[in-house]
Amino acid sequence: MPKLIKPQSPKAGLAPGTLVYLGDKKVDKVSIQIMDYDAESLKEVSVTRPEKCEEYLDKDTVTWIHVAGLHEIGIIEKFGKMLKIHDLVLEDVLNTAQRPKFEDHENLIFVVVKMLHWVAEEDDVVAEHVAVLLGPGYVLTFQETDSDIFGDVRERIRTTTGRARSVGADYLAYALIDAIMDQYYVVLENVDDRVEVIHESVTTNANTDTLKVIQRLRKELVYMRKELVYMRKMLWPLRETISSFEGSESAMIQDATRPYIRDLYEHTIQIMDNLELLRDTLTSAFEIYLSMVSNRMNDSMRVLTVIATVFIPLTFVAGIYGMNFEVMPELKWPYGYAYVWALMGAVGIGMLVFFKRKNWL
Amino acid sequence: MPKLIKPQSPKAGLAPGTLVYLGDKKVDKVSIQIMDYDAESLKEVSVTRPEKCEEYLDKDTVTWIHVAGLHEIGIIEKFGKMLKIHDLVLEDVLNTAQRPKFEDHENLIFVVVKMLHWVAEEDDVVAEHVAVLLGPGYVLTFQETDSDIFGDVRERIRTTTGRARSVGADYLAYALIDAIMDQYYVVLENVDDRVEVIHESVTTNANTDTLKVIQRLRKELVYMRKELVYMRKMLWPLRETISSFEGSESAMIQDATRPYIRDLYEHTIQIMDNLELLRDTLTSAFEIYLSMVSNRMNDSMRVLTVIATVFIPLTFVAGIYGMNFEVMPELKWPYGYAYVWALMGAVGIGMLVFFKRKNWL
Amino acid sequence: MPKLIKPQSPKAGLAPGTLVYLGDKKVDKVSIQIMDYDAESLKEVSVTRPEKCEEYLDKDTVTWIHVAGLHEIGIIEKFGKMLKIHDLVLEDVLNTAQRPKFEDHENLIFVVVKMLHWVAEEDDVVAEHVAVLLGPGYVLTFQETDSDIFGDVRERIRTTTGRARSVGADYLAYALIDAIMDQYYVVLENVDDRVEVIHESVTTNANTDTLKVIQRLRKELVYMRKELVYMRKMLWPLRETISSFEGSESAMIQDATRPYIRDLYEHTIQIMDNLELLRDTLTSAFEIYLSMVSNRMNDSMRVLTVIATVFIPLTFVAGIYGMNFEVMPELKWPYGYAYVWALMGAVGIGMLVFFKRKNWL
Amino acid sequence: MPKLIKPQSPKAGLAPGTLVYLGDKKVDKVSIQIMDYDAESLKEVSVTRPEKCEEYLDKDTVTWIHVAGLHEIGIIEKFGKMLKIHDLVLEDVLNTAQRPKFEDHENLIFVVVKMLHWVAEEDDVVAEHVAVLLGPGYVLTFQETDSDIFGDVRERIRTTTGRARSVGADYLAYALIDAIMDQYYVVLENVDDRVEVIHESVTTNANTDTLKVIQRLRKELVYMRKELVYMRKMLWPLRETISSFEGSESAMIQDATRPYIRDLYEHTIQIMDNLELLRDTLTSAFEIYLSMVSNRMNDSMRVLTVIATVFIPLTFVAGIYGMNFEVMPELKWPYGYAYVWALMGAVGIGMLVFFKRKNWL
Amino acid sequence: MPKLIKPQSPKAGLAPGTLVYLGDKKVDKVSIQIMDYDAESLKEVSVTRPEKCEEYLDKDTVTWIHVAGLHEIGIIEKFGKMLKIHDLVLEDVLNTAQRPKFEDHENLIFVVVKMLHWVAEEDDVVAEHVAVLLGPGYVLTFQETDSDIFGDVRERIRTTTGRARSVGADYLAYALIDAIMDQYYVVLENVDDRVEVIHESVTTNANTDTLKVIQRLRKELVYMRKELVYMRKMLWPLRETISSFEGSESAMIQDATRPYIRDLYEHTIQIMDNLELLRDTLTSAFEIYLSMVSNRMNDSMRVLTVIATVFIPLTFVAGIYGMNFEVMPELKWPYGYAYVWALMGAVGIGMLVFFKRKNWL
Repeated sequence: MPKLIKPQSPKAGLAPGTLVYLGDKKVDKVSIQIMDYDAESLKEVSVTRPEKCEEYLDKDTVTWIHVAGLHEIGIIEKFGKMLKIHDLVLEDVLNTAQRPKFEDHENLIFVVVKMLHWVAEEDDVVAEHVAVLLGPGYVLTFQETDSDIFGDVRERIRTTTGRARSVGADYLAYALIDAIMDQYYVVLENVDDRVEVIHESVTTNANTDTLKVIQRLRKELVYMRKELVYMRKMLWPLRETISSFEGSESAMIQDATRPYIRDLYEHTIQIMDNLELLRDTLTSAFEIYLSMVSNRMNDSMRVLTVIATVFIPLTFVAGIYGMNFEVMPELKWPYGYAYVWALMGAVGIGMLVFFKRKNWL
Repeated sequence: MPKLIKPQSPKAGLAPGTLVYLGDKKVDKVSIQIMDYDAESLKEVSVTRPEKCEEYLDKDTVTWIHVAGLHEIGIIEKFGKMLKIHDLVLEDVLNTAQRPKFEDHENLIFVVVKMLHWVAEEDDVVAEHVAVLLGPGYVLTFQETDSDIFGDVRERIRTTTGRARSVGADYLAYALIDAIMDQYYVVLENVDDRVEVIHESVTTNANTDTLKVIQRLRKELVYMRKELVYMRKMLWPLRETISSFEGSESAMIQDATRPYIRDLYEHTIQIMDNLELLRDTLTSAFEIYLSMVSNRMNDSMRVLTVIATVFIPLTFVAGIYGMNFEVMPELKWPYGYAYVWALMGAVGIGMLVFFKRKNWL
Repeated sequence: MPKLIKPQSPKAGLAPGTLVYLGDKKVDKVSIQIMDYDAESLKEVSVTRPEKCEEYLDKDTVTWIHVAGLHEIGIIEKFGKMLKIHDLVLEDVLNTAQRPKFEDHENLIFVVVKMLHWVAEEDDVVAEHVAVLLGPGYVLTFQETDSDIFGDVRERIRTTTGRARSVGADYLAYALIDAIMDQYYVVLENVDDRVEVIHESVTTNANTDTLKVIQRLRKELVYMRKELVYMRKMLWPLRETISSFEGSESAMIQDATRPYIRDLYEHTIQIMDNLELLRDTLTSAFEIYLSMVSNRMNDSMRVLTVIATVFIPLTFVAGIYGMNFEVMPELKWPYGYAYVWALMGAVGIGMLVFFKRKNWL
Repeated sequence: MPKLIKPQSPKAGLAPGTLVYLGDKKVDKVSIQIMDYDAESLKEVSVTRPEKCEEYLDKDTVTWIHVAGLHEIGIIEKFGKMLKIHDLVLEDVLNTAQRPKFEDHENLIFVVVKMLHWVAEEDDVVAEHVAVLLGPGYVLTFQETDSDIFGDVRERIRTTTGRARSVGADYLAYALIDAIMDQYYVVLENVDDRVEVIHESVTTNANTDTLKVIQRLRKELVYMRKELVYMRKMLWPLRETISSFEGSESAMIQDATRPYIRDLYEHTIQIMDNLELLRDTLTSAFEIYLSMVSNRMNDSMRVLTVIATVFIPLTFVAGIYGMNFEVMPELKWPYGYAYVWALMGAVGIGMLVFFKRKNWL
Repeated sequence: MPKLIKPQSPKAGLAPGTLVYLGDKKVDKVSIQIMDYDAESLKEVSVTRPEKCEEYLDKDTVTWIHVAGLHEIGIIEKFGKMLKIHDLVLEDVLNTAQRPKFEDHENLIFVVVKMLHWVAEEDDVVAEHVAVLLGPGYVLTFQETDSDIFGDVRERIRTTTGRARSVGADYLAYALIDAIMDQYYVVLENVDDRVEVIHESVTTNANTDTLKVIQRLRKELVYMRKELVYMRKMLWPLRETISSFEGSESAMIQDATRPYIRDLYEHTIQIMDNLELLRDTLTSAFEIYLSMVSNRMNDSMRVLTVIATVFIPLTFVAGIYGMNFEVMPELKWPYGYAYVWALMGAVGIGMLVFFKRKNWL
């Protein structure tokens, strides 16, 4: 998990609209991939210079330009000029600390979302900044790395001749965002599995676990809580974003696409619900964990105290007959020693029975 | 109780609107039951192929088609084609992880609800995915299993010639959803009984219960809490769903049916209220439980400590007269031994009286 | 206090609008009392059959029909027919588990409220289901028992020739609901007194109270908390109910009556405020109670531990001189025994002084 | 601080609009003070009968009638008749339990506020019921006691010939309520000082304070919390009240006065903010206090336990050589006694070093 | 950090609109700096008397007047007269306790914001009162101290001939507020770093830290919490302020500037988000801290109790053979002493093994 708050201070003092890339350079070279298609034809090209895209934009087809890598500000600026995009929009494309947002400009719908991955080797949730720009007849997408996050959509465009090809750019924009939301399910299930394991552990093994298990559990609890806080930070503005997308009255969104966007919104709500549920479960697990730790302490202290308490009166008895009074009849009894053992046995057993009855053992 | 979050990941990467059944196959064969009635006539048929339903749909009667079993996607698709239902609606019919929802299409009202059962043998609340589609003159219902959840409604249609027969398909849709909501009361009462038992236990027996009772109580508390979280997850969207149903201005809902739907909405609110009340009661029970456990610990520790504290000074006295000084006048006294017993008795009783006064015993 | 959630399950499976009385029969015979009045005249009659009411309804006077007892469904049905009341309204009249509600039908305003009593002998708050129906020129009220909850209003109608007589049925409906709300103040003050006593107890006597006082306090705290939860369950929907009453634009409510209804709404808000305040106070009392119990435990443990801690080193000293070494010079000293007492006195007093300084005593 | 909930029950059963004074008589004689002024002239009179006010009301000047003392209902009734005020308004003037409210009648603006004093000798916040009625050309104010709460305003009217004199009755009403709000700042600062002292105490002296300091702190914490609850009860409805005042579209409020009322509203918000901040600070102080008490307990218990734990093994060693075995070589050693002291010294010091390392001392 | 609530009481009793400076005099002499520019020309002057500003205001350029120092009320009054500013606005300019606010007057937009600095030498967040007044063709800014908070903006005006020069006064007002918001990022990152350090400390070193580390951590936790409360107090009204700025329909804000103000609003939301996140993290750190302290206590108590518990039975054994019975066969055994050592060794080791198994060591 990256730092919760990304430094913005390098930007403090700069004029608004100044293009600065705040992230770490994550790919060597910016790659630009074009898919240009309609129901009949499909053309895929990889270019290196934005100017090459221009020829596809004019045609009466859907053009999807995907830019992987954000560190070359020149490229972003060229796209800005070519497609007449406001400086502040370009600033948000580059600002990897930007929260998810939706903006409805004339001739441009601008969506910032966060892609979530569960990176197994780091055992961590990683969020990637993705910007989707929908214009008339084109979709322009930006991502920081070159991971193939839109592979499924690309494959569907290639293989189907169905809806995925015959509908407009608005459906493509929807399909891309939908692909990102699908990843949230995958991550959530991962988190869910671990939270369930924790909950199971604290619920069933409450009395027998060792100190090490307890320490591992606490670490896991703290860790998962931080992950959930992080995911929530991503999801709350995302909900608003998709809600604005759904409510948008932009002429660029066709009526046929609207039910899909509504569906997308419902998925977002469902993901939020599940996240809240996980939080509840984790909080509950944490409470049970605390009561488990406290129980463990209580039990050990009680047993230790019982042991001490049983022996203290016995030691007192032994102390009695260790006194050096000249007149102590018991000491002269032939069975004095046996009697004292019997006395101590009776006292000890009596106390144990009493403690057992009181359920202190 | 099933897993809180159902896996959706098999669907990640598929095109939206692709029909996939995510649940476990729960019946051997999909059964289709038709009830076709008006005020005078009633016809009941069981068919196996959707096409057979077509003849009933045209007639000027109310047609109720009930489909039990969701694993044969072909059947769902045929209904979709026959009744011109949007792919996304069909997707939600199949998606057993779909939260309750209401959709108001032209010529179609689509409602997803969750049927709750308390399965005694598993001692668990089980939710079943139910979809109700209301079209002009027909109601189409889907459920996963073949449990007879609409038996009461069916019986009422058969026996009455009153309202249940003479009114339209909208009233039938209402009656079916009402039958589902009625089950929530049954489950809630079940839960209520158990929560009350827990609350009673922690309130009255606070001081005398044994360790086993305490452990059983904790397990029960944790379990009921999880059940309530689960039911809440079902109910929150249900409230919204029924509220949308009530607010719907669809031409398919007649004015005479509206008061019934408002009544349904009030029942939902009442169920929510009761659920919140149960949560409050359970939380309160949990707090009392914690203070009870802590009390139990405190009491035992205090009594143990008192016992130890009484004997330590006595042992000190015995230690004194166990010393081997040559000059120790008391040791030579004829009643020295009696005197030391009197001394120890006085010290012991004095301490007990002091502790009693301080209310430590 | 009755069970928090009243069983509804007997109704599950019945057709909506079926009249069923869910409460326990609380009076032997249903009584019907009629007051028919205008500014000049007043007639009071007791009848047994609803039909007898008919003659009063037509006249140009205000007619108040009060029905005590809900178990004879026939009577309710007759009123329903006579006054053309919707079946669902009648169902709510009978449904004693119905939460407070307001319904604005054409020619009928329907209000369900809960009457609160503090029953001294049971030491409990009891809620009674009351339904008020306001139609053109008449008010119809239903209650479960024959307790004279509207005695004050009746007396005012009898004695005044002022407003209470000359104004319409809407003012009467207001006056009846106002009489019910007045009872909430009485109950709240009762609760307030007890909560204040608890708060006072836990605040002032924090250090001196006995175990029994503590246990009684806890029981009282738990009990009052449950009562407050119960009252809140009644009051939250009541607020909404009265708010709807205030906002109603029904032609049956005259302008002159509106300020009174607004006043009624403000009283409801004030009652809510006070209830919340009581909850705050009780929560605060509970927290102080917990810290008091914990303090008590801490204090006793500390004193006990101090006693033990003082005597353990002394016993050690005694143990030293109980050793049997052949060469132990002190044992031969003539003042050895005195010296050892002096030593032990010094150690003991030194420790007590040290603990006192540390404020552990 | 008076009781949180003032008894209302004497009013239960009375007809609405019946004038009853619920407070305690707080002044001997009701005093009525009139200020009648415009930019040029100013007349001040004290009268005893309301009728005397009549002559000033007609004139084209601003007339401020201030009534101190509410127990003579006849006087209130006369004002009611003279100025045609609704009975329910008069009821609220008298009802000292009335929460702050704003009412916008035709030709009358009615505001109930609470004046707060910090009464030093009782060390308590006291709230006084104040009613302000603004009519065309006059302001009528009621207070319970004869404390000179509006002295500043009166002085400003006397001394200035500026705004305070030339503007209308609406500005006077504003100025009077503003004077009351100013008192909230004074009280809040008082509370703030004490809360800060508490917070400082628990934060800095956390480890060294004596038991008495701790008990005083707890008492203070509980007390301040109750005060804040009380002030909040006053302020929440006050906010709403002033907000309604600001939003009022009454023709009696001139445009020139509106910015002042908006300013008043902002002051109210600021007071609310500060109150919430104080609550936060107090809650935080309480938490730190609890952890401080718990720390104190922990520290003392640990040190006591360490002392006991060091001496128990030493006593064991002494016990060993107190045994009476015939064959115990050490007892015969010439330096046996020295050796045993060395042994015990080593054990004791070893344990102390170990505990020190573990940071238990 | 200054006192949370600034005293307002000196103002209680004064007429509204009276100009009083409540802060401490923070600069020796009030300085007035003028920047007068359009796309081509730029003029910078420092003056001492407000009248000198008049000549720049008339011209068709953007005039920025920056006043550092608020203690000379005469200067403020002169600006008020010159620019026809309402007395209440001037009062708010001077009132350093004024919360952030936005006011939209005809020909004047009035914004109060708080500048945050992290003063390293005091290790504290300090808020400075800043007022921005936007009129036709001019911006008037007031600050308390002479710290150069707008240095970046001034530099940009000097160096660029771009947007910062060619656009109107509304853009300048935006740029100034933006510069203030940028500082919030800087402060937040500072806070974030420290919160992260705390969180890291309590999470990783949970078991090994010394008492001093724990006490330092607690102090830091309490301190950071107070800082966050303070920042929140600043930020909540700021959000509303910027939101009003964004929503303002004043004719003085040009369409080209609006996207920048929307951007500013988003930054404010992002800052709020981050602040809430920090609060969450800190709360979580505090909880872990508490469980860490409690763990530490538990561990030490358990180990101490184990030591005591092991030695008490051994001491009992020694006590047995210290008894003086005439008949005690073991005492005569040649290997009695060895046997008793063996016995004690067995008991001691047996107990240690048992405790180890139970995970109490």
